[in-house]
Amino acid sequence: MKNLLSINKYVEGVLKKDISVLARAITLIESSKEEHQEISKQIIEKILPYTGKSVRLGITGVPGVGKSTFIEVFGQILVQKNHKVAVLAVDPSSTLSKGSILGDKTRMEKLSIDDHVFIRPSPSSGSLGGVARKTRESILLCEAAGFDYIIIETVGVGQSETEVHQLTDFFLLLMLAGAGDELQGIKRGIMEMADGVTITKCDGNNLDKAKIARAEYANAIHLFPPTESGWIPEVKTCSSTENNGIEEVYDMIEKYIRHTQSKNFFQKKRQEQTTFWFESLIQEKIKEHFFSDKNFLQRYNNAKEHITKNEISILNAVNSVFTK
Amino acid sequence: MKNLLSINKYVEGVLKKDISVLARAITLIESSKEEHQEISKQIIEKILPYTGKSVRLGITGVPGVGKSTFIEVFGQILVQKNHKVAVLAVDPSSTLSKGSILGDKTRMEKLSIDDHVFIRPSPSSGSLGGVARKTRESILLCEAAGFDYIIIETVGVGQSETEVHQLTDFFLLLMLAGAGDELQGIKRGIMEMADGVTITKCDGNNLDKAKIARAEYANAIHLFPPTESGWIPEVKTCSSTENNGIEEVYDMIEKYIRHTQSKNFFQKKRQEQTTFWFESLIQEKIKEHFFSDKNFLQRYNNAKEHITKNEISILNAVNSVFTK
Repeated sequence: MKNLLSINKYVEGVLKKDISVLARAITLIESSKEEHQEISKQIIEKILPYTGKSVRLGITGVPGVGKSTFIEVFGQILVQKNHKVAVLAVDPSSTLSKGSILGDKTRMEKLSIDDHVFIRPSPSSGSLGGVARKTRESILLCEAAGFDYIIIETVGVGQSETEVHQLTDFFLLLMLAGAGDELQGIKRGIMEMADGVTITKCDGNNLDKAKIARAEYANAIHLFPPTESGWIPEVKTCSSTENNGIEEVYDMIEKYIRHTQSKNFFQKKRQEQTTFWFESLIQEKIKEHFFSDKNFLQRYNNAKEHITKNEISILNAVNSVFTK
Repeated sequence: MKNLLSINKYVEGVLKKDISVLARAITLIESSKEEHQEISKQIIEKILPYTGKSVRLGITGVPGVGKSTFIEVFGQILVQKNHKVAVLAVDPSSTLSKGSILGDKTRMEKLSIDDHVFIRPSPSSGSLGGVARKTRESILLCEAAGFDYIIIETVGVGQSETEVHQLTDFFLLLMLAGAGDELQGIKRGIMEMADGVTITKCDGNNLDKAKIARAEYANAIHLFPPTESGWIPEVKTCSSTENNGIEEVYDMIEKYIRHTQSKNFFQKKRQEQTTFWFESLIQEKIKEHFFSDKNFLQRYNNAKEHITKNEISILNAVNSVFTK
């Protein structure tokens, strides 16, 4: 890491929309060093009044669904509409991260050289929960730096979706046509978390298949119980290579935001998300307090072994963990 | 509560399939008195070797879907097939509990007088998590008393489904035909938790509607990602009043059990469930340790108030909770 700046320099730089300072502040947030944690906490505290004014869009889908090419084209539409766009990745396995090995520019050629766009690959390490939480703070920094459309990319195969769901206003699921093998990768439960579904690669030989898939998913989603806000998730088709249908995805998200804002659900959801992260952190700290005790950990592991062998009841197992 | 028996008397009574002792042991488990908790812990420990040999079936659905009448007819089929059936309710709002106010016999007329059947309404109080956990122990007691088919009833509108899902081998969702208003009550996410769906009241004027609903749900479920065991949830229709289609539900469950046992998934799932409850209890205890401290609780509530007003960053809020 480069030499540290003073806290005020970070704050000023971010608020002045200095991209290199923004990038360095995010690096601080991602650092696990206690010293860096302490500084980044103070930075976040100071930029807090300047946050919140963005659309936070989560995009997920299995590898191969075409997330990068979608974001490349979608991002350009956002820029045309005068948005300032930040793209962040959560999973170490996301295309953005792979992109960072290949060089982002090969993945998002036009987007990455646009002045109104900031692209940040995910940190390559750290527990997923930790990574997602740090992404939360990166979002705040990007907002303070004036980005008003934040895309959070994740891979729909891991543990991260619930957490990314708790970071975003709109959760977009990208799907391939053909409801067969392609689904294998998506985790159960993600479908019901999506605020919108988009079938990608709706072009060439895929055209008919994609349209059928669209109808099927739209039907299926109608069978789901309605969302709390009353929003019914929509299913779109698009082709990133032919630049078809991408604008409709934008319109869907805009419609959703108007819908939820009119019912005050937008703000309510954000507040619930804040509480979610607060409580997760509290729980983490509480757990840490106990599990950092080696003897406790050993008793815990012993008890766990006995219950999986059905040698002891759960209640007695729990007791044994708390009895020194 | 009647006079307490000795621990051995409870254990002997349960193992001798003495229904009145079984009922009294469950009452002990449901009691929140520490003294009763201590005794029931020891009872569970002793009957543990005699547990596990049953099919644990979760049944859920909104009020009005016909859970009681379904269980009444389904239970009789089980008895005909030489099963010994226990019916337990989890939610205080379940039909069984309402039944207990009206007298169970008005709800499950034939089932409740059958010698091979044990019906137990849910406890009328207690936190849901606590109730579900105690249901877990009631299941163990019923198994030790020789019941080999345990039905756990819950209402698909509350918080309990995830927990009941962690108690059962097969999770059956009862639905009404007509995918409109009736769905309002079901929580999102429950559809994807179901191992099987059954459309009830498939009779009279409802017949066509029920068959269309069946086809629609079967299609929708096919769009879901496959379950870990590779089982594809099936959708059935039934009429409890005409005794139609109930046998098919039984066959579906049998098929599921053969399927999961052949892949060793049945046992694996049970072990994961045991671990789930162990870890929930550990977490509960750990939380209790902190939250029983009034000063901690006050700091926690203060911090929560500040973050919902966006007056303080989450990290600093968490810090303030742990700083005396």
